Amino acid sequence: MDYVNGPGRNHLFVPGPVNIPDQVLRAMNRNNEDYRSPAVPALTKILLEDVKKIFKTTSGTPFMIPTTGTGAWESALTNTLSPGDRTVSFLIGQFSLLWIDQQQRLGFNVDVIESEWGQGANLDILASKLAADTTHSIKAICIVHNETATGVTNNLATVRKLLDHYQHPALFLVDGVSSICALDFRMDEWGIDVALTGSQKALSLPTGMGIVCASPKALEASKTAKSVRVFFDWNDYLKFYKMGTYWPYTPSIQLLYGLRAALDLIFEEGLDNVIARHNRLGKATRLAVEAWGLKNCTQKEEWVSDTVTAVVVPSYIDSSEIVRRAWKRYNLSLGLGLNKVAGKVFRIGHLGNLNELQLLGCLAGVEMVLKDVGYPVKLGSGVAAASTYLQNSTPLIPSRI
Amino acid sequence: MDYVNGPGRNHLFVPGPVNIPDQVLRAMNRNNEDYRSPAVPALTKILLEDVKKIFKTTSGTPFMIPTTGTGAWESALTNTLSPGDRTVSFLIGQFSLLWIDQQQRLGFNVDVIESEWGQGANLDILASKLAADTTHSIKAICIVHNETATGVTNNLATVRKLLDHYQHPALFLVDGVSSICALDFRMDEWGIDVALTGSQKALSLPTGMGIVCASPKALEASKTAKSVRVFFDWNDYLKFYKMGTYWPYTPSIQLLYGLRAALDLIFEEGLDNVIARHNRLGKATRLAVEAWGLKNCTQKEEWVSDTVTAVVVPSYIDSSEIVRRAWKRYNLSLGLGLNKVAGKVFRIGHLGNLNELQLLGCLAGVEMVLKDVGYPVKLGSGVAAASTYLQNSTPLIPSRI
Amino acid sequence: MDYVNGPGRNHLFVPGPVNIPDQVLRAMNRNNEDYRSPAVPALTKILLEDVKKIFKTTSGTPFMIPTTGTGAWESALTNTLSPGDRTVSFLIGQFSLLWIDQQQRLGFNVDVIESEWGQGANLDILASKLAADTTHSIKAICIVHNETATGVTNNLATVRKLLDHYQHPALFLVDGVSSICALDFRMDEWGIDVALTGSQKALSLPTGMGIVCASPKALEASKTAKSVRVFFDWNDYLKFYKMGTYWPYTPSIQLLYGLRAALDLIFEEGLDNVIARHNRLGKATRLAVEAWGLKNCTQKEEWVSDTVTAVVVPSYIDSSEIVRRAWKRYNLSLGLGLNKVAGKVFRIGHLGNLNELQLLGCLAGVEMVLKDVGYPVKLGSGVAAASTYLQNSTPLIPSRI
Amino acid sequence: MDYVNGPGRNHLFVPGPVNIPDQVLRAMNRNNEDYRSPAVPALTKILLEDVKKIFKTTSGTPFMIPTTGTGAWESALTNTLSPGDRTVSFLIGQFSLLWIDQQQRLGFNVDVIESEWGQGANLDILASKLAADTTHSIKAICIVHNETATGVTNNLATVRKLLDHYQHPALFLVDGVSSICALDFRMDEWGIDVALTGSQKALSLPTGMGIVCASPKALEASKTAKSVRVFFDWNDYLKFYKMGTYWPYTPSIQLLYGLRAALDLIFEEGLDNVIARHNRLGKATRLAVEAWGLKNCTQKEEWVSDTVTAVVVPSYIDSSEIVRRAWKRYNLSLGLGLNKVAGKVFRIGHLGNLNELQLLGCLAGVEMVLKDVGYPVKLGSGVAAASTYLQNSTPLIPSRI
Repeated sequence: MDYVNGPGRNHLFVPGPVNIPDQVLRAMNRNNEDYRSPAVPALTKILLEDVKKIFKTTSGTPFMIPTTGTGAWESALTNTLSPGDRTVSFLIGQFSLLWIDQQQRLGFNVDVIESEWGQGANLDILASKLAADTTHSIKAICIVHNETATGVTNNLATVRKLLDHYQHPALFLVDGVSSICALDFRMDEWGIDVALTGSQKALSLPTGMGIVCASPKALEASKTAKSVRVFFDWNDYLKFYKMGTYWPYTPSIQLLYGLRAALDLIFEEGLDNVIARHNRLGKATRLAVEAWGLKNCTQKEEWVSDTVTAVVVPSYIDSSEIVRRAWKRYNLSLGLGLNKVAGKVFRIGHLGNLNELQLLGCLAGVEMVLKDVGYPVKLGSGVAAASTYLQNSTPLIPSRI
Repeated sequence: MDYVNGPGRNHLFVPGPVNIPDQVLRAMNRNNEDYRSPAVPALTKILLEDVKKIFKTTSGTPFMIPTTGTGAWESALTNTLSPGDRTVSFLIGQFSLLWIDQQQRLGFNVDVIESEWGQGANLDILASKLAADTTHSIKAICIVHNETATGVTNNLATVRKLLDHYQHPALFLVDGVSSICALDFRMDEWGIDVALTGSQKALSLPTGMGIVCASPKALEASKTAKSVRVFFDWNDYLKFYKMGTYWPYTPSIQLLYGLRAALDLIFEEGLDNVIARHNRLGKATRLAVEAWGLKNCTQKEEWVSDTVTAVVVPSYIDSSEIVRRAWKRYNLSLGLGLNKVAGKVFRIGHLGNLNELQLLGCLAGVEMVLKDVGYPVKLGSGVAAASTYLQNSTPLIPSRI
Repeated sequence: MDYVNGPGRNHLFVPGPVNIPDQVLRAMNRNNEDYRSPAVPALTKILLEDVKKIFKTTSGTPFMIPTTGTGAWESALTNTLSPGDRTVSFLIGQFSLLWIDQQQRLGFNVDVIESEWGQGANLDILASKLAADTTHSIKAICIVHNETATGVTNNLATVRKLLDHYQHPALFLVDGVSSICALDFRMDEWGIDVALTGSQKALSLPTGMGIVCASPKALEASKTAKSVRVFFDWNDYLKFYKMGTYWPYTPSIQLLYGLRAALDLIFEEGLDNVIARHNRLGKATRLAVEAWGLKNCTQKEEWVSDTVTAVVVPSYIDSSEIVRRAWKRYNLSLGLGLNKVAGKVFRIGHLGNLNELQLLGCLAGVEMVLKDVGYPVKLGSGVAAASTYLQNSTPLIPSRI
Repeated sequence: MDYVNGPGRNHLFVPGPVNIPDQVLRAMNRNNEDYRSPAVPALTKILLEDVKKIFKTTSGTPFMIPTTGTGAWESALTNTLSPGDRTVSFLIGQFSLLWIDQQQRLGFNVDVIESEWGQGANLDILASKLAADTTHSIKAICIVHNETATGVTNNLATVRKLLDHYQHPALFLVDGVSSICALDFRMDEWGIDVALTGSQKALSLPTGMGIVCASPKALEASKTAKSVRVFFDWNDYLKFYKMGTYWPYTPSIQLLYGLRAALDLIFEEGLDNVIARHNRLGKATRLAVEAWGLKNCTQKEEWVSDTVTAVVVPSYIDSSEIVRRAWKRYNLSLGLGLNKVAGKVFRIGHLGNLNELQLLGCLAGVEMVLKDVGYPVKLGSGVAAASTYLQNSTPLIPSRI
């Protein structure tokens, strides 16, 4: 089964699925259990409370759905909207593209605001649209907080400000797949109506749990939303929540215990420290890219992402070759460029349960691969830039002081 | 986290999720991997070939979807049918009820053939309906192979014979959740168009993978089916199959390796031996129930299930108390009675990677619980009946001869 | 590697190594760690305190040695005695025989008190020897608390009484390998000078840790004992205890965390409840043996063992065939008869983290094997006898009340 | 239990215990088994054959003893020598010192050849002693192949040449604890009589198995050796080898399956490739040390070690502070300086299942720590030196080509 063994550990730096901490692997190393026994509901109840903390919400209602991010998207949309509803959605990269595609296929009338890949959501156009929409035909703003394909982070606070400014009642739906638990995210403060993430991203679990959190307004909307849905229907969950059995169908026992362990680690470190760590690792990566003389796909500082960096390669290099070679020679897994930026960028994921030396090992590996494929990098230069910053900014590990 | 520890091992005899063999736990005890590296597609390719064997199909196309049985149902329906389509569906217990509910909510025109709980699908009525349906308004026959709530196995071969007899083109959709890999199941021979199962049942994996297998006719139907679908859309899978990357969204790496290990165990034992073992354990259970002087919920021998036995308790006993007490005193997990049979039956699941002595331990436990709740069982009587049969019928373990 | 797979779980009923609870497997599922970091000494310090509780000692000093029971014996002897020293040792079965052999090979003058296999230590002869030994030539009494080969438990309290009665200063060395954490054991109250056990017995861990606990008198003796020793020398440990680094050589990180988890389970259940559970399972097993019409190898009730039952088979049956067949047909692992009782007894180990239904599954299996090999057992009879007792005596699981 | 959690993975670079590959962790994640069933002897038999390959011996007899390296030493000595026997032993660092201490305490007459710490064994003095020893009073040459405290590798081939040159019959006993499976080691070719290693070193397993391999001459010596031994006695093993049951006492089931997985990985990579990889990582480390302007404790190129590098720090720095800080701030585990070099060196272990990027992450960490403690290192300089070499010399991973 492990027919591609290489010596040593795989260096997993794709922007998901990410490294699972040993503590979580241990917690998940277990047999199935009867999910109708008292134990699983008791565990679920606590998890539903605790999971709200990573969304920074007290009023939201979370759903832990056995699905992926794509399914979480579908859950967000079908529970709150009706076919034909107008959504405003930002096309800035492959994942926002896929979400828009889903919105269209689910029958919504998608008003797309497109930006060049590498730029953030154009909020000026959003402002105009909101200003113009005096009839409130816009039912939802759909935005990807962090576009994983280009390493672009959008400004959610501004979206909220615009909605407030124009007193627009549109629902605010946010894909937080590669942001929640890693970037600053404030569901309640920013008035987000549905926020969602996937277990295999910053939570550092296996794939298989899509976590969707609905505001009271979103729950209210779900009562009248006419989109056809069964598997993804919040209402089935709410019925079982009320009964105290919690699950309309069988959950993954292993992911529940895994989530417990993952949250324990996050709360022990402190969510704000987790976010600060992502900022630190993100900055270090960007300093390395600069030192290599390469460009970040993200076109402006305001959009840089602390969870993934898309690195633009010179035109004479095929970025896919970088990814292939990293895996074949150095056991390093990097992210491919997707769609419009295929062959043009490679991506370094730096999210989840990760530390400074893991990242520096990755950066050292990227340097060697760059040289392998003919880019005249000065070996050690990126590591030097990154570690100069990290040596100044890395705190002591609190449990070890 | 393990706040309900009891000494020794939990005896897991709910009809799903079932016991995970140690070999599978080991295979799943691993970090995430880049699913876009060459390794995961290579593994997926082989799995897609091998998984067809458990459906007994060579012409089918399997989809391994990150979802549960409920999601697999939705995938089967939405890919093959259009809103308003007439389906014929059999209501014989809680799970067929839930599937019918889903069919209705997805907008189909469900023609329900109801039986008393404990009886199998009424195929005589099906015959009349098929005979009458000269315009072929029936688009699909939806049937649960094994109704997990009542322990009733339906005769799929007869359904096929009826369809052939009336030369009816309706699609034949089968929920094989608690049958595939445990009961005799022949997708190709029986002309099944969509068959589906869930990882946490006879495959003995964690929950999280719904496996749906489509016949060429079903694939053809999917091209024109108008049901709205995105996450469950086969077409997205087929596009990625063609590209050789296989996954439209992130799979669970752990479940892929787990499935590999589970299939290895099944093929090593031999699928027909696995089925024979389920038959052996099913018979042993029924002999025990008889020895206790209790009734099987299944009303006729022709419908008895080799994966789950629903045991009817005397009216002066609440079957839920049996389940509660089994767990609280003997670390034994039994299945509750559901809906119409709540309080009236408890269920013994005997599916998945399980052997004779595990079952006999369970039966000994059931006897003690029965006595606990006031039923005048002769302790040892069920075990005696079961072991008399098993001592005659259990083969040597092939790897140890 | 797993080339002897059989369906379902192995039923492990040898008297060691025993079943490892899932909680312990999880705790041990980890990478190595630097044992000189602050973490491992901190863990060790707590373990050394906690491990004393299973010996019921407050004044003893424990050593957790990377070795087996045989090595623990050697540690007990060489640290307290000098070559030529007279020991009194009881020969009552294979393990006491092996310990005597070790004593002789280590150069001690062993005064053997032999009993028929199936009988306990002859304490009358001990009394005479102590009475006669006015010069205190006897330096140590060496006794196996529970002889695993015959299922015989010796009375340690009486040994202490005799020593006190004759005011004899001999050291009191006890092999508690198959007793500690399962049988009533009171190091301080019974004035035991060295007590020892192995991780793979009632502690339910893998093999690899011999735990030896020394009284102040034993530690004093170690200062003048002239037996040659290095690896097993307590003094090396004591030096490192003083420094707070604890380990004279590399410990198994996994066993340390495993021991932590094992002790947590034992303390959560309550040591006295653990002992009561062993008593319950022991009695149940003896009732089954009686119901089968077979004899317990243990000749008198006062010596019966709550951790292992050696069952005498009729002369026309080879007990080894029972063990072989149990493994080959029912995935049941029983203990062979050893040395003098080879072919004459088979053994059921019922120690460690085990519950009632696991035992009943085993007993049902033994019945079937007995029938397989031609013994006219009434199937179900042993299970009936055992479960009648257990249904009356098993408490609710405290964490689930 | 995991009260010293830090984000991300621990970077384990002590020279033992080393990182356990995931494949090995998986193989060890299992319940106990009856070691007297047919399965464990069958596994043991193959392991005993395969383990000889890592010693490069066909004529040797291996013993897999449940102990540590210290116990393996004791096994080597007590099975081949008698009290009072003269050994020649080289004192070049902490581990050779401890072995000499053991030799003395076991009653041998140890003729110590001392070198400055940082130098290799003085073979000129050995030559004189052999030349002078016409009566063959020297019974054994005891040499540590790789002194883990100073990072010094001795030349075993030369020792053999000297013995041959002087036609001296002394036994040639080699501690290969931090060399076997990592450095060039040829038991048969170099006429080594006893070679030994520990599971937690280059085999990349948990601690708990001392592997000792005896030449025919050593086995012959064991027949007359008068040292007292029981637990470590080869003869007990040989008796059980003959019977085909292999184990005089209980082995660790987990370590047996773990060893199987570890050997599979080594053979898949190719033992010579494993050794070449250690050479590559060793050189890279030394180049980094040089780039930092620091001195290797090893005084001459001929002695440099490919498994551990002891780095000398300037006198104004306490090397223990480096180790403490690395763990507290960067989750990096380095080796302390021991005894004479305490405070003066820190050690980087680079043995076992490890790859280039893991090492570069470590080196980047060391640089940051050096800066933390006030050494004016140029950040990135060591990584640059190491990666320049590695980018030229690292082969593609064979399974991925």
